[in-house]
Amino acid sequence: MNPSKPAVIIQNPTVKEAEAAVKEALVKRKCLIIVGNCWVEYSGRASSKLESGERILMVKEDGSLLVHRSKGYEPVNWQPPGCIFQTKIENDTLVVKAIRRKPHECVKVFFDKIYMVSALSLKDAGEFSLYASEEDMQRAILAEPQLVEEGFKPIAYEKKVKPGFVDVYGVDSNGNFVVVEIKRKTAGREAALQLARYVEAIRETVNRPVRGILVAPGLAKGVQRILETLNLNYKALDPRKCAEILRRSKTRKLAEFFR
Amino acid sequence: MNPSKPAVIIQNPTVKEAEAAVKEALVKRKCLIIVGNCWVEYSGRASSKLESGERILMVKEDGSLLVHRSKGYEPVNWQPPGCIFQTKIENDTLVVKAIRRKPHECVKVFFDKIYMVSALSLKDAGEFSLYASEEDMQRAILAEPQLVEEGFKPIAYEKKVKPGFVDVYGVDSNGNFVVVEIKRKTAGREAALQLARYVEAIRETVNRPVRGILVAPGLAKGVQRILETLNLNYKALDPRKCAEILRRSKTRKLAEFFR
Repeated sequence: MNPSKPAVIIQNPTVKEAEAAVKEALVKRKCLIIVGNCWVEYSGRASSKLESGERILMVKEDGSLLVHRSKGYEPVNWQPPGCIFQTKIENDTLVVKAIRRKPHECVKVFFDKIYMVSALSLKDAGEFSLYASEEDMQRAILAEPQLVEEGFKPIAYEKKVKPGFVDVYGVDSNGNFVVVEIKRKTAGREAALQLARYVEAIRETVNRPVRGILVAPGLAKGVQRILETLNLNYKALDPRKCAEILRRSKTRKLAEFFR
Repeated sequence: MNPSKPAVIIQNPTVKEAEAAVKEALVKRKCLIIVGNCWVEYSGRASSKLESGERILMVKEDGSLLVHRSKGYEPVNWQPPGCIFQTKIENDTLVVKAIRRKPHECVKVFFDKIYMVSALSLKDAGEFSLYASEEDMQRAILAEPQLVEEGFKPIAYEKKVKPGFVDVYGVDSNGNFVVVEIKRKTAGREAALQLARYVEAIRETVNRPVRGILVAPGLAKGVQRILETLNLNYKALDPRKCAEILRRSKTRKLAEFFR
């Protein structure tokens, strides 16, 4: 195997050829893809069996393992990073064993037909960045209102008031109305005054106390004092946290697969 | 491409060759693996960017998409099943776009170098089965005590009493002691009598009320009446549910990736 090549691919190897290629890839900590007919046994905190079928096995550089079927975006079997791998040939079958120590869990994959073994040396230093808009922050707050404060309950968003639209409108745990103004960047004087106008406009229409909360990743110099003077509150919230919350609400569906 | 072959593999294709192969695989609803240098953009409930690097793209028959880096068992980008795919060549770059309609989310993968395109026709009718032992049921109850009843709090397991070992020992929401006896199959008369002996043994040593709960997937004929006579309770619990809970507790770590 040429170590400089990003992908070394062997098509339709014999079980013996496949075992040699797999062993070498594992020793050299390469990323490994095996496509073939296999069955899988898992034993650990629970145990499972997957009957014979054609699947994709992936072993990553960090010692994680994934068995993917042709459908479903979740792996049917998997192990986290840090596994120890063993390979052997048993009754004309290539056995790839991934062992996790703590807790002890073992996934064994048995291949009786192999269509492809691919050993990959992937160069990847690219950064992954999540972004969130003001709208993302708004949706994250609607999904998890405690981001604003414990006990906060949203009633409406983009509520029309005389001076414009209130980002999120709700009640606090004491029954006060709450106007939430969201900024995705450091909030300046104008944001505080805008919030004050919204609070004032709502006070004219209701006979309950109305609070104003400015939600932003930070405050410009002097803005904290303006907020205090106007009797408004501030809640620090990072847009990236909101993006993660939105992504997590997407992820929950991923996790539901296992239920 | 030969439709009868389980794996058709093209090594180091040009962008044009790759696009043709990818398009054909997508139209024929094949499983698709692309290895190459790519960057990824996601926009939807949040948005993200992944900078350039060598990665593995997988598109499954059901229209799900996974982008895997060489490390980490989680995909860095993904889409659930049911996506609509579009491919095009733009500035010598192969663009694979996976669009989800509801909610609208779009993942775009841009390849400027392609080492492998593999189109797979995987036959897979194998069944996946999870198993659970009595010990698995015990561990599931320790992990999620409300499986026994709301408010149940375990204190000990395998607690030694005169007649043997109590599977799980705890207190209920009223402060009564609770002895839990677990059976992974339909519980018979003997299980009820065994539980009664444990409850009796514990009653001799404490000065609080002691309850007994038999946890099993079912009761043999007449056992419900025996339990009532002995003033013991029954809680139906499927061992497979326990296996799923144990698997889920493993999965939580998977989900934590996104936090």
